[in-house]
Parts: sequence; C-alpha cells; structure tokens
Amino acid sequence: MYKIVFMRHGESTWNLENRFTGWTDVDLTEKGREEARQAGKILKEAGFTFDMAYTSVLKRAIRTLWITLDEMDLMWIPVVHSWRLNERHYGALQGLNKAETAAKYGDEQVLVWRRSYDTPPNPLEDSDNRTSFNDPRYAELSRTDIPLTECLKDTVDRVMPVWNEAIAPAIRAGKRIIISAHGNSLRALIKSLDNISDEDIVGLNIPNGQPLVYELDENLKPIRSYYLGDQSAIEAAMKAVASQGKSK
Amino acid sequence: MYKIVFMRHGESTWNLENRFTGWTDVDLTEKGREEARQAGKILKEAGFTFDMAYTSVLKRAIRTLWITLDEMDLMWIPVVHSWRLNERHYGALQGLNKAETAAKYGDEQVLVWRRSYDTPPNPLEDSDNRTSFNDPRYAELSRTDIPLTECLKDTVDRVMPVWNEAIAPAIRAGKRIIISAHGNSLRALIKSLDNISDEDIVGLNIPNGQPLVYELDENLKPIRSYYLGDQSAIEAAMKAVASQGKSK
Repeated sequence: MYKIVFMRHGESTWNLENRFTGWTDVDLTEKGREEARQAGKILKEAGFTFDMAYTSVLKRAIRTLWITLDEMDLMWIPVVHSWRLNERHYGALQGLNKAETAAKYGDEQVLVWRRSYDTPPNPLEDSDNRTSFNDPRYAELSRTDIPLTECLKDTVDRVMPVWNEAIAPAIRAGKRIIISAHGNSLRALIKSLDNISDEDIVGLNIPNGQPLVYELDENLKPIRSYYLGDQSAIEAAMKAVASQGKSK
Repeated sequence: MYKIVFMRHGESTWNLENRFTGWTDVDLTEKGREEARQAGKILKEAGFTFDMAYTSVLKRAIRTLWITLDEMDLMWIPVVHSWRLNERHYGALQGLNKAETAAKYGDEQVLVWRRSYDTPPNPLEDSDNRTSFNDPRYAELSRTDIPLTECLKDTVDRVMPVWNEAIAPAIRAGKRIIISAHGNSLRALIKSLDNISDEDIVGLNIPNGQPLVYELDENLKPIRSYYLGDQSAIEAAMKAVASQGKSK
C-alpha cells in the first residue's frame, strides 16, 4: 500500500482579497505561512516523512512546501517544480474581485466560471499584460502550451501527464511524496484518482493548507483518504472556499 | 563565455559560537539570513539571473539559497541537492569550540587541522552519535562514502565528481548556475578551477554570504573572478574567517 499527501497552498494575498488568481504569482499572507507551519507540525507529529516533493512554479505553493519541509526537517529532499501543477488559468477573470464579479454578472454565472467542468472564462487577449508569454519560468514551453484561459477539463488535461509520467512511477518505486499545489490542480488529480464525474467535481472544495492523505493500493487506486488535523476547522475552511464566489 | 556564482552560506549558529561544524546540520543566525537577503538583492541589482541552482543537503546552505532565490523572484528554478557539496567533515572536532581547541592543542595544531591539505583531524568512532550513518539524507550512500573525518584533499575528491559529471556539463549547455555551499567545498572547487597548489590553498578564505562570480572561457577555465558587493566588508569578512582558529 502507498500513501501520498496533497496540500493546497496556505492563504494567499488574493485569497484574502477574494480575487481570481490563476497563474498570477501572488505570495502567501502571514496566515498562509502559519497554516503551512501547522501543516508541517501536524505531518511530523503524525509520523509522516517524505522522499521527494512536487510543486508548481508559483510561489504560494512553493513557499507552502518550503515552510512545511522546514518544520519537518526535510529541506534537503528533492523538489520537482512543474508548471503542470499550476492553478487553473482563470483567463480574463485573473485579478478581478470574486464578489464584485458576482455582483456584475450574477452568482450563477460566476459559479459556472468557477466550477463548470467545461466552460472556461473568456480568454486573455494575446496583447494583455496578464499573459504568461514573457515569464521566464515558461520560456521552454511552446506558445500553445501556455494557456489564455482554462476550464477544469483543460486543467485535467494539462495536469495528468505529470502524474502519469512522473509522480505515479515514483510512487510505484516506493517514494513517499508530498504535492504542494492549488485548489484546481488538486481537484484535477483527485477527480482522476477518485473517478469523480464531471457533475460531482463541482461540489469538491479543498481548504488551504490542510494535509490531505490518500492511501493507494498497488494499482494506485484509492483505499481511503482523509485530512489530517482538526476536522471541524477543515469543514469550516471547505465551506469558506465554496462561498467565495458569492456576491455577499 | 560563461558565468557561475559561488556563495558560502550566511553566518550559522556555530559560526557565531566559533565551533567546528562540518556535517552537523546547524541553522543560520538572523545575521546569516540577512546576509542571504543582501546577497539576493546585490545579485538582482547587478542583473544576474539563474536557470538552476546546486546546493548541499545541509540546511545552512539550503536556507541561504532559498532566501537568495526568494529575493531574486527565482523560487521556481530547479535546485539540485548534493551531499558532495557538503562542508568538509571535521571528524572528532565536530562540535568543539575553535578557540578552546586552540588553547588546548595550540594555534599551530588547529591551523594544521583547519587548513592542512592532507592531514585530517582524528576520525569519529563508528559508535559516536555524531556520525551520519543513520541520517536519512545519506540513506542511499554506501557506508564507505560517509566520511568519519576529512582533510581538504578528501573533500576535493568527493566534491569534484558533481562538478565534472553534473555542473560543468550544465554550464556548457548554457545554464546560468548558482552554487550555495560551504567554506571548504567551495575551496575544493576553486582549488581545481584556479589550479591552486596544495600549499597556497591554505591561505584562501571565503567569507559568509558574499556572491563570488567566476567568468569562464569555453573550456571552463577562469578568465576572472570577483566578489559582488562592498569590497572592504568582504576583505574584513575574509580576515575574520582566517582568525577563527586562534586561541584569542
């Protein structure tokens, strides 16, 4: 039997400001750093250790990982940064306030943009200074691999290669792995692992900074999954994520 | 022409306490963290950027790198941790105060242990709880690769494979690299690069937390090398390193 730990980054400055973030490289708040410290402590107390880590190329996920590994005295383990683990690209919504957007377009439209499986927000235009074309961290990607918007289906298509080609083989080789990533890149992985339908994935919300353990059988099928830590705090955090896109 | 940047970690708790550290995994002091922040700022202001980084498996070098990369907005670049870049193993001296050791054995004997090219301090015994045999970061090494003491010659022999087999090919492939390591693992690299004699290497002292730039020709032979930043502060720091092993 294998175990893998998923973790959504701690609270970011744009989580706090309730803005659509996507590929924007915002940092953690002090609360987000404290969530990461707590996660590291909880993992250590529960007897977890890791042989390697995967994260995105966005600093809110990397810093969450760094703080967690620091607490666990595991700063030395190999860390792989993959753009494929980035948050869903939010297209033209990136930078907008979620509640203001809901007030303007209606709660229902924002829920469609946030949670519909296959309806992306409007894309950024090529000329928009919010595009990632000139960001050095994507310099080795072909231009068509750099999204201008994504629905969750697009995120699944982009995330799964790093799971199938790198992470899953490493798990099978016995590596104990932690993945520090984002709400939607983790939803993409979990949708695939738990075989969740396109409809039901809409209702899955992942709280910030809480270690989520998956126990997997020899075929990497989930046996069970659970959050470590204070269960009532985790439920409250999941509800908070679900309500972010409402106008009030 | 290629450029590579070497950096010794910022001040550690045992630099501050003037103790022989070696493979002991002590952390940075607040001054050491500030040195790393300054190094990142200086590198950024001088227009440096990096495609990848190498460091040891010891947290004083890793944290120095993390802080530097954070300041440069480069948290996302690939980082390779190699035990081969660890500090020289200080054998039975690890943990002892340098001045007390000098008072006991004489300044001259301590200078031999600190700086002689081929005279190692007494080895740790196998049963000493200061050995690294049970440390998970060395779990994949063969027992004979884990030192019980080293002279600088031993450190050279252990460091050069990662240069020859990994770092040098990456430089030739055009990668801009920063190496965050330790006084003696960097002396080992520099001895080889600059073809310094076994006698002259004794006089080379590397200050904490100062970016050292090497410009290399197409055969990776040094064209010139220089420290970035305030030159008088760097000279003072080099003299401080040289005087650490004196009894008063």
